[in-house]
Amino acid sequence: MCVSVESYHGMSVLWYTEWLSPHEAHVHGILELLFDGYTKYQRVTIAKTGSFGLALFLDGFAQSTEYDEFIYHESLAHPAMITHGNPRKVLIVGGGEGATLREVLKHESVERAVMVDIDEELVNLCRKYLPEWHKGAFDDPRVELVFADGRRFIEETKERFDVIILDITDPVKGTPGVPLYTKEFYEKVRERLNPGGVTVTQATSLRYYERAFAVIYNTVASVFPIARRYKVFVPSFYSDWGFVIGSLDRDPLEVPKEEVESKLARLPLKYLDAEQYSFLFAIPRYLVERLSRYRDISTLSNPLEI
Amino acid sequence: MCVSVESYHGMSVLWYTEWLSPHEAHVHGILELLFDGYTKYQRVTIAKTGSFGLALFLDGFAQSTEYDEFIYHESLAHPAMITHGNPRKVLIVGGGEGATLREVLKHESVERAVMVDIDEELVNLCRKYLPEWHKGAFDDPRVELVFADGRRFIEETKERFDVIILDITDPVKGTPGVPLYTKEFYEKVRERLNPGGVTVTQATSLRYYERAFAVIYNTVASVFPIARRYKVFVPSFYSDWGFVIGSLDRDPLEVPKEEVESKLARLPLKYLDAEQYSFLFAIPRYLVERLSRYRDISTLSNPLEI
Amino acid sequence: MCVSVESYHGMSVLWYTEWLSPHEAHVHGILELLFDGYTKYQRVTIAKTGSFGLALFLDGFAQSTEYDEFIYHESLAHPAMITHGNPRKVLIVGGGEGATLREVLKHESVERAVMVDIDEELVNLCRKYLPEWHKGAFDDPRVELVFADGRRFIEETKERFDVIILDITDPVKGTPGVPLYTKEFYEKVRERLNPGGVTVTQATSLRYYERAFAVIYNTVASVFPIARRYKVFVPSFYSDWGFVIGSLDRDPLEVPKEEVESKLARLPLKYLDAEQYSFLFAIPRYLVERLSRYRDISTLSNPLEI
Amino acid sequence: MCVSVESYHGMSVLWYTEWLSPHEAHVHGILELLFDGYTKYQRVTIAKTGSFGLALFLDGFAQSTEYDEFIYHESLAHPAMITHGNPRKVLIVGGGEGATLREVLKHESVERAVMVDIDEELVNLCRKYLPEWHKGAFDDPRVELVFADGRRFIEETKERFDVIILDITDPVKGTPGVPLYTKEFYEKVRERLNPGGVTVTQATSLRYYERAFAVIYNTVASVFPIARRYKVFVPSFYSDWGFVIGSLDRDPLEVPKEEVESKLARLPLKYLDAEQYSFLFAIPRYLVERLSRYRDISTLSNPLEI
Repeated sequence: MCVSVESYHGMSVLWYTEWLSPHEAHVHGILELLFDGYTKYQRVTIAKTGSFGLALFLDGFAQSTEYDEFIYHESLAHPAMITHGNPRKVLIVGGGEGATLREVLKHESVERAVMVDIDEELVNLCRKYLPEWHKGAFDDPRVELVFADGRRFIEETKERFDVIILDITDPVKGTPGVPLYTKEFYEKVRERLNPGGVTVTQATSLRYYERAFAVIYNTVASVFPIARRYKVFVPSFYSDWGFVIGSLDRDPLEVPKEEVESKLARLPLKYLDAEQYSFLFAIPRYLVERLSRYRDISTLSNPLEI
Repeated sequence: MCVSVESYHGMSVLWYTEWLSPHEAHVHGILELLFDGYTKYQRVTIAKTGSFGLALFLDGFAQSTEYDEFIYHESLAHPAMITHGNPRKVLIVGGGEGATLREVLKHESVERAVMVDIDEELVNLCRKYLPEWHKGAFDDPRVELVFADGRRFIEETKERFDVIILDITDPVKGTPGVPLYTKEFYEKVRERLNPGGVTVTQATSLRYYERAFAVIYNTVASVFPIARRYKVFVPSFYSDWGFVIGSLDRDPLEVPKEEVESKLARLPLKYLDAEQYSFLFAIPRYLVERLSRYRDISTLSNPLEI
Repeated sequence: MCVSVESYHGMSVLWYTEWLSPHEAHVHGILELLFDGYTKYQRVTIAKTGSFGLALFLDGFAQSTEYDEFIYHESLAHPAMITHGNPRKVLIVGGGEGATLREVLKHESVERAVMVDIDEELVNLCRKYLPEWHKGAFDDPRVELVFADGRRFIEETKERFDVIILDITDPVKGTPGVPLYTKEFYEKVRERLNPGGVTVTQATSLRYYERAFAVIYNTVASVFPIARRYKVFVPSFYSDWGFVIGSLDRDPLEVPKEEVESKLARLPLKYLDAEQYSFLFAIPRYLVERLSRYRDISTLSNPLEI
Repeated sequence: MCVSVESYHGMSVLWYTEWLSPHEAHVHGILELLFDGYTKYQRVTIAKTGSFGLALFLDGFAQSTEYDEFIYHESLAHPAMITHGNPRKVLIVGGGEGATLREVLKHESVERAVMVDIDEELVNLCRKYLPEWHKGAFDDPRVELVFADGRRFIEETKERFDVIILDITDPVKGTPGVPLYTKEFYEKVRERLNPGGVTVTQATSLRYYERAFAVIYNTVASVFPIARRYKVFVPSFYSDWGFVIGSLDRDPLEVPKEEVESKLARLPLKYLDAEQYSFLFAIPRYLVERLSRYRDISTLSNPLEI
């Protein structure tokens, strides 16, 4: 006898709105809200969306969704790992969902993976609600999980790593992410790399924050001998998403094609294969032209903010 | 150090949308979501809204809000109670928040108040999250709380009441509320009234469901010797809200003004006073004209549905 | 063969959004957009809405709609006209739609009506698209139409009037309306009234701008011997809407009931009758209490802005 | 003195909503609305959006925008033209904006281009409001513009073409586009191709209509000896967008890389270059897998509808 209805032909009533600008938004109908609340650092919303399945939103923006989180996480982790060639010690800054950790651990060379996230409550929520993201990665014996400010950790640790992955929130004005995109921070990161070390950072949206993507690249290029930018289309981000690699020694574009292929072939992946891998680095020329307009870098005294 | 931001100048990101039609909606920014889930009977959302404070939504529509729930509940309960004059036994069908019960118990004449709600989970959520609504009414020794289908209860009980208050959800197609607005149901209600008994039902929106308001009035008038319709403006309903009284004996419009005044004066109320009370029954003439177009009544075989 | 569709069960695709706050909005599906553009003074949108029929929006807010413009315009014009008793010369400041003018001209005593609107383009758009609003009022031989800044007109004219009606946009920060709600302006208005003169201003929303309503009342009361505030529910404003009368001599509340009735009876009205008229001045006590918190007035040096 | 404001920090008030499902939408703030109305066949909205500049919307969906129309139109036209190798006579069905025509005319081999669009009013609106789209293409002496139903034209014409480009609206239920994606229609198209002829159709969104993309491919493959599907990311479509080529003779994937490069080098393009061209055909494997679930084709008796 019970019938529960949503109004007007099943139109959702609860919506998550991503405000891209005062003139653009994406709205996600929420089928079921698993969690919505504030941790010490951010508003966390975990919900089953009509559009992308289970999703994690932080402070107004989708971080990853069931439909396509693997596109983002594979594309973030593997190019840096493959560029290094034989990473044994890996540091992840951020990455609360545990999915970047999951990808890193797929590499058999990895002996130790340290993940430093500022927000213990968020990590606990992800462990509880997003098991398909971390897939038990937090319990891998190679993993050390540290709850600390990533910047301070980088400054204070004596350890060095082969690969450092910066899986952090966008440099939104007033948030702790801002200094993590500056020249000063990248210099500290460089100091914490072993010889041959590689770092990669997520680098925002090529559509919505093209200036941010350009400036992050410029900043990394001002610190590392080799810097490469790349992108991948992530449907739930409605945009090509950007990444920037800083490398001490090896150029991602110089890794032999056969090496890329053989390494990818050994990893159980859903998105990346040799064909898509080569596409990552192909920025369309209209974007290259748009990006060329931005010449500045981000520094602590004049940081990039979006 | 921690800064938590909402995007774009504090614009809300989580919104509750009330779809009034495919061409009109009210959207409420959700500052904090206390509960969102399905009971056996309906989707229940309890949230702190930016617009009206704490609010209860059922299946897509605001039921009552911190800002103005007293307007609705005072206007629902007291005209029937005052019309009766000396109600000792009162039945409430629906009324999950406990606020109608709260108003009923303000009348010193009341010796027994039975509240029958189909949805025990909803009542428990209201007890937990909306203490300012029930204000402890559920614990009053005069109260009996029954979890049952209101229609079946009315059909099966042997008890008679002085006042029966129908505080139920709108007759949305496919929901259990539909039969509770039919001639057959009102006939059962009439049988459960003592001599001199009075019933009142909420009767939807004069703006959005004018046909429903008209048909409910027509239906009550087809069963009771005396029927009166009235309305009050409830800001969070964005509309004048309708009610219909069915009375066996006394006409609400014939209660002496001094009696109304003296009774209201003894009740601790926030909205109703003698002045507002007299205007409840003043339907604007443009609406009287619009309402006069609807001549039909609701029956089980041809029920009113919205 | 041609079928034109809207997406998803006839859901509107073009929407007008009234932002009440960063946490509340009303959204109107636009069935047909007749005009959208900028005059010298404001963004004007004239559209057929699904919710309220033809509607005029200025700078983000509904000004009047086919469904209920008469509620607003009758309630604005007639209490001041009736309070005066025998108005022959009337000034309207603002009132671009011509509907306030239409109401004024219904009074047979009126010999001259001057309407001063700053925005000639707006008036021309209303003449073209909203004939049901003005109903030919602009062509009445008693009318003089002046395109000028209302404030300057009031300051420079030598003429005096029996009734001055301020039918102007809300005092939104940065708009020309702000000074038209100040003590200094009301002093100029007072100077332009004949003995026994009456002025009335629209006074924003009792729901959304309760402080504005309170301050406008305080300001009028600081200038006129008699000040009265009143309200009416306008569905398309989703709120009780406020007005304030300033009177040199006669108190609106002291006009004999029979006089009100006989005057209203001679006017062809759709909303106001003697019953609703008396209701206008009945501010609910919860609002009286909320309004009592605001003690300040609006001045040029410290103006009310919303 | 004049100040025109939008409400709340410049938030748009007029929005175009693309309903992707009852649970997902993209909303575009309209800065200036140039045209909104109904032609005989569809609702046409031409507006300056905050997100993508000038944009054309048909029946609820963006068709092309100033920001990225060239990505869609270059990707639609050139692979078929290059696959043919030496197209002299080209037919475009649909393509109201004139941008596909613009791309076709860039090929020096083209001697005659016939464009058949059902909606003359739409084409006139595009000529008037979207000059940057057609760039004068309609006035090229090689062009014949026919206003007719594309299906009937294909059935009745005696002419044969080297390339036929289907630049038509999605097969939304109840619209004239539905039969233009069926086996029967593709058979007629095949008959109108010269030996070595190539056809290409737009094939909807890989994200939102993956089944449609799959079925269109299946259907083309059931009619043409060679069928290839490809995609490109179009930001204003928030998705990889699909296309399907049907070829009588030459396989798009077999065109020598040097030939592609030399042909592209001669065309003044903004998006396509040899690198991006090669990635058009690289469907990510997670999508290949999803697409493999759909085995049916579209026929007149059982057509694909979205």
